[in-house]
Amino acid sequence: MRLSTQRVPDNPKFGSPSDFKRAIADLKKTFVQDGVISTDVHDLEAHGFSTMDYHPATPHTVVVYPKSTEDVVKVVKIATKYRMPVIPYSGATSLEGHFRGHPVGGICVDLNYMNKILEIHEDDSDLVCQAGAGWMDINETLKQKGIPLFFPIDPGPGASLGGMLSTGCSGTNAVRYGTAKGEWFINATVVLPSGEVIKTKRRSRKSAAGFDTTKLFIGAEGTLGIVTEVTIRLAPVLPTTVAVVHFPDVGSATAASIEAIKQGAGIQCVELLDAIAMKATNNYGMSTRKWPEKDSLIFKFQGSSESSLKETAKIVQRVVAKHGGTGFVLAKNAKEADDLWADRKNLYHSGLSLVEGARGLTTDVCVPVSRLPDLIHETKKDLEKVGLVTSIVGHVGDGNFHALLLFKTDEELAIAQQAAARIVHRAIALDGTCTGEHGVGIGKRKYLIEELGAGTVDLMKTVKRAIDPLGIFNPGKLYPDPIHANKFQPQ
Amino acid sequence: MRLSTQRVPDNPKFGSPSDFKRAIADLKKTFVQDGVISTDVHDLEAHGFSTMDYHPATPHTVVVYPKSTEDVVKVVKIATKYRMPVIPYSGATSLEGHFRGHPVGGICVDLNYMNKILEIHEDDSDLVCQAGAGWMDINETLKQKGIPLFFPIDPGPGASLGGMLSTGCSGTNAVRYGTAKGEWFINATVVLPSGEVIKTKRRSRKSAAGFDTTKLFIGAEGTLGIVTEVTIRLAPVLPTTVAVVHFPDVGSATAASIEAIKQGAGIQCVELLDAIAMKATNNYGMSTRKWPEKDSLIFKFQGSSESSLKETAKIVQRVVAKHGGTGFVLAKNAKEADDLWADRKNLYHSGLSLVEGARGLTTDVCVPVSRLPDLIHETKKDLEKVGLVTSIVGHVGDGNFHALLLFKTDEELAIAQQAAARIVHRAIALDGTCTGEHGVGIGKRKYLIEELGAGTVDLMKTVKRAIDPLGIFNPGKLYPDPIHANKFQPQ
Repeated sequence: MRLSTQRVPDNPKFGSPSDFKRAIADLKKTFVQDGVISTDVHDLEAHGFSTMDYHPATPHTVVVYPKSTEDVVKVVKIATKYRMPVIPYSGATSLEGHFRGHPVGGICVDLNYMNKILEIHEDDSDLVCQAGAGWMDINETLKQKGIPLFFPIDPGPGASLGGMLSTGCSGTNAVRYGTAKGEWFINATVVLPSGEVIKTKRRSRKSAAGFDTTKLFIGAEGTLGIVTEVTIRLAPVLPTTVAVVHFPDVGSATAASIEAIKQGAGIQCVELLDAIAMKATNNYGMSTRKWPEKDSLIFKFQGSSESSLKETAKIVQRVVAKHGGTGFVLAKNAKEADDLWADRKNLYHSGLSLVEGARGLTTDVCVPVSRLPDLIHETKKDLEKVGLVTSIVGHVGDGNFHALLLFKTDEELAIAQQAAARIVHRAIALDGTCTGEHGVGIGKRKYLIEELGAGTVDLMKTVKRAIDPLGIFNPGKLYPDPIHANKFQPQ
Repeated sequence: MRLSTQRVPDNPKFGSPSDFKRAIADLKKTFVQDGVISTDVHDLEAHGFSTMDYHPATPHTVVVYPKSTEDVVKVVKIATKYRMPVIPYSGATSLEGHFRGHPVGGICVDLNYMNKILEIHEDDSDLVCQAGAGWMDINETLKQKGIPLFFPIDPGPGASLGGMLSTGCSGTNAVRYGTAKGEWFINATVVLPSGEVIKTKRRSRKSAAGFDTTKLFIGAEGTLGIVTEVTIRLAPVLPTTVAVVHFPDVGSATAASIEAIKQGAGIQCVELLDAIAMKATNNYGMSTRKWPEKDSLIFKFQGSSESSLKETAKIVQRVVAKHGGTGFVLAKNAKEADDLWADRKNLYHSGLSLVEGARGLTTDVCVPVSRLPDLIHETKKDLEKVGLVTSIVGHVGDGNFHALLLFKTDEELAIAQQAAARIVHRAIALDGTCTGEHGVGIGKRKYLIEELGAGTVDLMKTVKRAIDPLGIFNPGKLYPDPIHANKFQPQ
């Protein structure tokens, strides 16, 4: 017996093209100020496409720029009336087509005007902001105000809080601070498909008052509601420094990373760069150094003082030596630390520099850390066989890595996409996930049942149907096959 | 427009007493081995009651002791067939009546035979176990095996993993490690009300593959399914030590705690004991010391080495002095650290010793940390007025505190319960929660709408209805008013 999936009609239809015309007319009547409603062709395309991925693309029918939660409610009510898809949009850094237009048409809700910090509670280490606020802007604002706190979830530059929550993202800091799925989002204000506005929780850091509905929206990719405000927890800004060390192979680098983390010293990040990524860094020409082209680890240390940073460096240096680590470099000052870390930050662009004129396809599988060497080893063998140039950078502390597969032609793109699919199957077979950070969107839908099982995916769909019975919230994203309609779903 | 709540009939009926007799007959036919099915009166009462709380109590109709997930599936299928309530039970340390019998009758599913550790992945810092395994037993097993890892979520002794997940619990370690709602539960195997078994996630530490269904069950108090297995993340065991310091008042102690945590030094726990709790400790006679009877902080420090512990102590000593802290005591060795921490651990019993023959009612509200002094100040004034002896111990790093309200007679219990209700209203008014750790059960249901708003509670109910359309999973717990039936709901 399956869940109550039969209780909600499986095929509610989207509105017709003429319904959508009426919806746009209603939107224009509701928002009479200039610039809130756009049907400009370039705008519709810019919001539906991305130059960062290779999924099929469709423009939206209309873009709305709300300025408040109440504006979003008005949009949702009109969308519901005319059964028109609603696709939220903010930082647009997604790599999996999360904000693609729907083939049947839809309303893109661009939250970029809702980017205000509303409250800063320094003593409580938290901050309230609108969903369109960017994590880098927030951290810059805190710095400028002299508040020694920051939001430690660090996905791509330009990502905004609503999208970060909706993707369940993470970044290099996850070793120390975990991910968006942890306890960094204290609460969210959400416009539900019903048009009702809820706040998922109050501002206390902890609560055991039932299951946390904030978590329903984390990773839901806008399919259950539109997040308009969030309260986020902040962490103290601490002194940091950076170290680099080289290894004979990925296995010894991973083993060193595992043992180093277990010392309980102040490791904020530990990133694996394979020999090809190091070669790319040399090739790119932006580094202050010429690196040995070997599998390497870049550490970011954090501590309450310079002396605790030194102690961490000493502990890590001892551990890496045990695993064959050589050429340990510790930044002598803040400038040097920035320079070393810049080599990590530049990896996407340095990777591209390996093949002139190449574009890159990025994967983001994640496995239990101990399985990482096997996965990378098998993957490298596979990629060599199909003749793709590929650099690998891994959040090795979490078992998560990015392979940047380079290609120039459509034929090579197809080869790269097939290789990326094989990486996913390999990761899932090692008890891992198709996506450690980037989310599902339209790019990873086909792996969801393989990864989670039909029962878990059915559970997700049951929740989706109960909350969005019309199926108009970001349809075609996340769930592996049409929840509602139908032939209109993108591939 | 509200959510799709009208789609599922609101009042499906539980089975009749003769249905339940047939259910028990089916259970006996299904489980023919000795000791799996019990209808012994003492057993039914022992599983439905608790000496630790003062909520109305009802025995179960039958207790089942499954040995596997498959056994639980069989129980759920019989419960579904006869529409009989199903109440999971494991460590039985709950203070809010989570495992109370249902007035209409029900099947108590006691998971205590499902207490095995199934896999230990030392390199991945994770462990797979059955839901009936206790956190203290797990940590003891790891210690005995010489594996320097532990599970850092530390609720009451005796709590087991299934209950800890279902309550969304936490404890003194939350300052450093967060709560059960964070990233410590990597996945869960759950028997759904449909009888289907799902595993919520794979074993990789991170995943962005959709919203995390593990989180649906964390804090759901058995109302959405029965958790039978979990994969938990472990943390490295580190050297620790303990320090105690005294303050002129709660406000300065809280301010010192806030500033100390912001230094980024290795603070694992920081507990506030008010002057009365210190008096109780002296009174109890188990302490190795005679304490000044002043509002105090007990710190547990952690670090990668003795020298980093010393550095943390130095930093904290400087910060507390700034806030009027006096008499700073730092444990000189492990034995002294254990002795100091024992005073914290004994607080329930030492608190009771303040009034001979008294029983105690424990509250657990949580507010943004900066609001804690106001809340404690108002609460103390209130409690003095009604003449209750009360000691306070706070997880001050999280804004969470326990007041132990002492009483001897039923009249005094009523006064204590009213005072506890006022503490809750006060906490909610300060943007806090009715429960930081203990959960809702039947004790906090009435506060849920006041805390979360009707819309958020409706969302929870919508999810509940979609997953448990018959409403037989731990009915009467968590949700503020009858989801399904009816007059049978406990108060």
